[in-house]
Amino acid sequence: MNSFGRLFRIHIFGESHGACAGITIDGCPAGVPLGAEDFVTDIERRKGGQQKGTTPRVEDDLPIFKSGLFNGRTTGAPLTILFENNNTRSSDYEKQRSIPRPGHADFTASVKFGGHEDYRGSGHFSGRLTVCLVAAGVVAKKLLASVSINATITRIGGEADTEAGLQKAIDAKDSVGGIVECRVNGLPAGLGEPFFDSAESLLAHAVFAIPAIRGIEFGTGFAAAQLMGSQHNDAIEDGEGHTRTNHAGGIVGGITNNNTLVFRVAVKPTSSTPQAQQTYNWETGEQDTLAVRGRHDLCIALRVPVVLEAVTAFVLADLMMLEQRIRRIW
Amino acid sequence: MNSFGRLFRIHIFGESHGACAGITIDGCPAGVPLGAEDFVTDIERRKGGQQKGTTPRVEDDLPIFKSGLFNGRTTGAPLTILFENNNTRSSDYEKQRSIPRPGHADFTASVKFGGHEDYRGSGHFSGRLTVCLVAAGVVAKKLLASVSINATITRIGGEADTEAGLQKAIDAKDSVGGIVECRVNGLPAGLGEPFFDSAESLLAHAVFAIPAIRGIEFGTGFAAAQLMGSQHNDAIEDGEGHTRTNHAGGIVGGITNNNTLVFRVAVKPTSSTPQAQQTYNWETGEQDTLAVRGRHDLCIALRVPVVLEAVTAFVLADLMMLEQRIRRIW
Amino acid sequence: MNSFGRLFRIHIFGESHGACAGITIDGCPAGVPLGAEDFVTDIERRKGGQQKGTTPRVEDDLPIFKSGLFNGRTTGAPLTILFENNNTRSSDYEKQRSIPRPGHADFTASVKFGGHEDYRGSGHFSGRLTVCLVAAGVVAKKLLASVSINATITRIGGEADTEAGLQKAIDAKDSVGGIVECRVNGLPAGLGEPFFDSAESLLAHAVFAIPAIRGIEFGTGFAAAQLMGSQHNDAIEDGEGHTRTNHAGGIVGGITNNNTLVFRVAVKPTSSTPQAQQTYNWETGEQDTLAVRGRHDLCIALRVPVVLEAVTAFVLADLMMLEQRIRRIW
Amino acid sequence: MNSFGRLFRIHIFGESHGACAGITIDGCPAGVPLGAEDFVTDIERRKGGQQKGTTPRVEDDLPIFKSGLFNGRTTGAPLTILFENNNTRSSDYEKQRSIPRPGHADFTASVKFGGHEDYRGSGHFSGRLTVCLVAAGVVAKKLLASVSINATITRIGGEADTEAGLQKAIDAKDSVGGIVECRVNGLPAGLGEPFFDSAESLLAHAVFAIPAIRGIEFGTGFAAAQLMGSQHNDAIEDGEGHTRTNHAGGIVGGITNNNTLVFRVAVKPTSSTPQAQQTYNWETGEQDTLAVRGRHDLCIALRVPVVLEAVTAFVLADLMMLEQRIRRIW
Repeated sequence: MNSFGRLFRIHIFGESHGACAGITIDGCPAGVPLGAEDFVTDIERRKGGQQKGTTPRVEDDLPIFKSGLFNGRTTGAPLTILFENNNTRSSDYEKQRSIPRPGHADFTASVKFGGHEDYRGSGHFSGRLTVCLVAAGVVAKKLLASVSINATITRIGGEADTEAGLQKAIDAKDSVGGIVECRVNGLPAGLGEPFFDSAESLLAHAVFAIPAIRGIEFGTGFAAAQLMGSQHNDAIEDGEGHTRTNHAGGIVGGITNNNTLVFRVAVKPTSSTPQAQQTYNWETGEQDTLAVRGRHDLCIALRVPVVLEAVTAFVLADLMMLEQRIRRIW
Repeated sequence: MNSFGRLFRIHIFGESHGACAGITIDGCPAGVPLGAEDFVTDIERRKGGQQKGTTPRVEDDLPIFKSGLFNGRTTGAPLTILFENNNTRSSDYEKQRSIPRPGHADFTASVKFGGHEDYRGSGHFSGRLTVCLVAAGVVAKKLLASVSINATITRIGGEADTEAGLQKAIDAKDSVGGIVECRVNGLPAGLGEPFFDSAESLLAHAVFAIPAIRGIEFGTGFAAAQLMGSQHNDAIEDGEGHTRTNHAGGIVGGITNNNTLVFRVAVKPTSSTPQAQQTYNWETGEQDTLAVRGRHDLCIALRVPVVLEAVTAFVLADLMMLEQRIRRIW
Repeated sequence: MNSFGRLFRIHIFGESHGACAGITIDGCPAGVPLGAEDFVTDIERRKGGQQKGTTPRVEDDLPIFKSGLFNGRTTGAPLTILFENNNTRSSDYEKQRSIPRPGHADFTASVKFGGHEDYRGSGHFSGRLTVCLVAAGVVAKKLLASVSINATITRIGGEADTEAGLQKAIDAKDSVGGIVECRVNGLPAGLGEPFFDSAESLLAHAVFAIPAIRGIEFGTGFAAAQLMGSQHNDAIEDGEGHTRTNHAGGIVGGITNNNTLVFRVAVKPTSSTPQAQQTYNWETGEQDTLAVRGRHDLCIALRVPVVLEAVTAFVLADLMMLEQRIRRIW
Repeated sequence: MNSFGRLFRIHIFGESHGACAGITIDGCPAGVPLGAEDFVTDIERRKGGQQKGTTPRVEDDLPIFKSGLFNGRTTGAPLTILFENNNTRSSDYEKQRSIPRPGHADFTASVKFGGHEDYRGSGHFSGRLTVCLVAAGVVAKKLLASVSINATITRIGGEADTEAGLQKAIDAKDSVGGIVECRVNGLPAGLGEPFFDSAESLLAHAVFAIPAIRGIEFGTGFAAAQLMGSQHNDAIEDGEGHTRTNHAGGIVGGITNNNTLVFRVAVKPTSSTPQAQQTYNWETGEQDTLAVRGRHDLCIALRVPVVLEAVTAFVLADLMMLEQRIRRIW
């Protein structure tokens, strides 16, 4: 199912080369001021075409409000927003139909949907739909007025100097992966629950909805597995729960603990590398070589930060609503 | 909420030092042969007290069937199983009430539940409740007859020689973390969906319900972020989707691709280290030193494999039911 | 929330005088042939303007497919359909803002959404959104190839001669209520569950989503409360579960029993009667008289049958999917 | 699934002649004082054996708290309560295995669960499980401190003089049906939503989980279908939404309107009538005659009021929590 959230609930739909990508947000409180201008910054951040290593495909991506907005405010009814697809070149894809691209969902989608899937530009599996996630994030951030969420690229191709990591890929005419870190300040303690609705469970669930994510770690993460308890435990320093260190990344027992929420995600190299690749040809029944053309990002990680912030925002907005922590400041 | 799954749905309840830990499985098909003997192997694997580095607390952990079983088979009605708590020493905990233990949920639980939580032995937050997860796994594995799920410890304290890693902690009188890897063979292609119900999303959601997990990565995982696309892409070799390499870890586009499912989790060092720790005292309003006594594991990662298998099993059983892939072989 | 269903799941959105009414169906199997022509019959049945007692407002109501359809078939991705609002006269409503109409949601919507609701033509509460339910029904009926669902008006204003009942209202220049009966043939035994997911629970849940419904009864219904057990029990006649009588209406223990499913709903008289009505004026703080103008149905029950069939269809499609009973005949 | 509710969520399990009937309530706020004594009144009201027309089977029905309670208060963790079955005579049922009883779930359960269901005393389909609903109601009523919920029998066998209606059945040595009305005072306006989560949808959903219910109507209900709009509309009298009449039964547009919530349910005559009945014999493949022995209620409607109150209470508790209306008065 293409839905997420208990009280602040989002549903996404659309395809890369269909009419649009779209989102319905159900459960958004009434009265939140909202207009197209609120979306500009994050939609622009998400777009390719403006920085080295991102795809030249650029959509205008104006949000088209179809329901749930009246006199410039949310009404409490479902909020539906469309982003039209104007700038598509489907012919790039149709000729490749018999050759499932490595790293893409061509093969798995075909198995799952019996060949009925819209295969143009990865169809419903496309990164195009992350515009829906970003839109949900814009609305969610409005509810999280006192919370700051910041995601940044910390590594490209293993390099902390991300420009250097990217240049290495450009020089090699290849795509490359990266690491994105997200830090959240201003969260109250008490969000999340033990076991299945732990803050980590919900964040990880939503984060793996972002295409190309291969891993997530909270706080010290995988490095924690090398530590001893006396090194890893965060000493509590006061009655508000602030800790001297923050190995836990702001979550203990599945619940936020009033320290900075910190997690990192691993982003794989863009599957559509300019390099020729081996794959199987369904028509000939033999191995084939694929040279991906079309317009693609060399480093999809470059476009992840705003998406990661958005996903984080709607998970946290939902948790805040569950704890009755959304202040009606509007 | 303490529930997980869409068709094969589990609910857990209980506390460390209360009457029991328990589980209700709703949606289990009728007719599955099931008895206490089916639980012995995995329950024994989960128990501490038998290997170096695990707690001496041992419960008999006989499953007590309360509903949903008749004449040795599941009935299709909710299956409720209790595990009684017989071997508890609550006094260990009651005197520590004013000193929240670093790394434990004492502080966050108190904030969230207003001081009404059962704090004895971490109460509902206890690792004791993983016996419920293991029990769900036993039932789920029965539905996954042709699937093999194997989790193993690959690192303790950063050492691939896990005995050496553990010994280092024993020598240091400290607790220590580890890495557990899970591999699943025999899965069909087609499990999972794009976006929110991706196989990674569902597995990660459930995995972070296991206490002490700090990260999860699929296939090449975080290392993928250092690679180029031509290195990371898995060449498809035949019409069944088998790939030459398996950097993807068996999932592409959120959907299983007929290769081995592979993921790893990071387990933090046990919070209850024998080392003295700094924390805050709610009563005095000042810093205090905590020396955790009681019975604890030095390396909780040692007990994770069977729990990780169980969690994996019930996620996959649910996905198999959603795809109508459960064969009634019983 | 504006969602319904576990596997065949629908989400509705839109307003009476906004841009559109819309629906997303998630979980629809891939490969179902679908086109605008499939919607014509039921959409026409739903429309007012063609028979005595229905509103002259007529929308073209062409389904606009926004996602999930490719080459004339469903893709397995979310299917989003919009129905544009072209024929609205909002000014009819704006002047009435301070006078909540009796029987309408004006008062309750205002309380719930703090005055931020779109009040034009009842906004999101409008019967306009039943076009979404009808659209979901069209798709659901495609999945239920061997099942026939028929709803008919059996009473208007208490009269079995419905023309006479309607004429009575026309003569009185008043609106009037009615009874609609739904009968379903061709269902297998085994749909539904004991307790919360009983077939009655799910049908009633969905049926009360239709505006103006005040009651539902299955089989002999309220009359059963007057009978003795020897009169009410349905004698089982063969191994397929066929019964001599059908007081149960095709459901026993929450589960379909292989007999005709029968239920009836009570539809209240249209709240927008031409008769003057007493109400309260928020601005003046005094009683006021309301004469509803605008375009309205005298007998909303006339438009209920196709909506009731649709609701029944999507509930049953979901139950059939849960029992793995949807045959891929397309 | 055997679950209901979004924030105040209940799960039921158990069988008539198994070990117990049980309930887990997830999402109950922490800190609610609760003890066995809170259950006495409603559990006693539910019991048979004390009034004419009810079964002589009497269980002690002491609630056994298994989790979620600590120092006499709820902890915020799942609250599990068992009711043991001590007073069962399974041999009554085992000999009837080949003869599905008319009106009971014997046939449908066998079809659905492939003959693996626990058939003793209707197993999981038994009215025995209404003790779980009553228990959930006891907890829910605690959260609804300022709300009064009262259900009463208004008709037995069509007679407003219920004693006379019952006596008619006793004289005829037959079972008999009845009508139960529920009235709720003290609810705020604003509970429920348009369409699928309307207050009527949620109440009806839960009410049809009660065995033997054949219909539900709100306010004037089925009689509303005979009225004209000018008769049925409730004139609004003040700014709080109070209405002169209450044909709507306290719900408009799916949302409570600050008037008394009123609805009625039809209860069929107990299927286990002392009268001989025709049915089918699975073993012989021929018609057979069934004389139900065992211990049964003549008029199951007599036991419905407390169950109906309970169901109403937990639906409303959930709606109140969704609107953040639960005051922490404990």
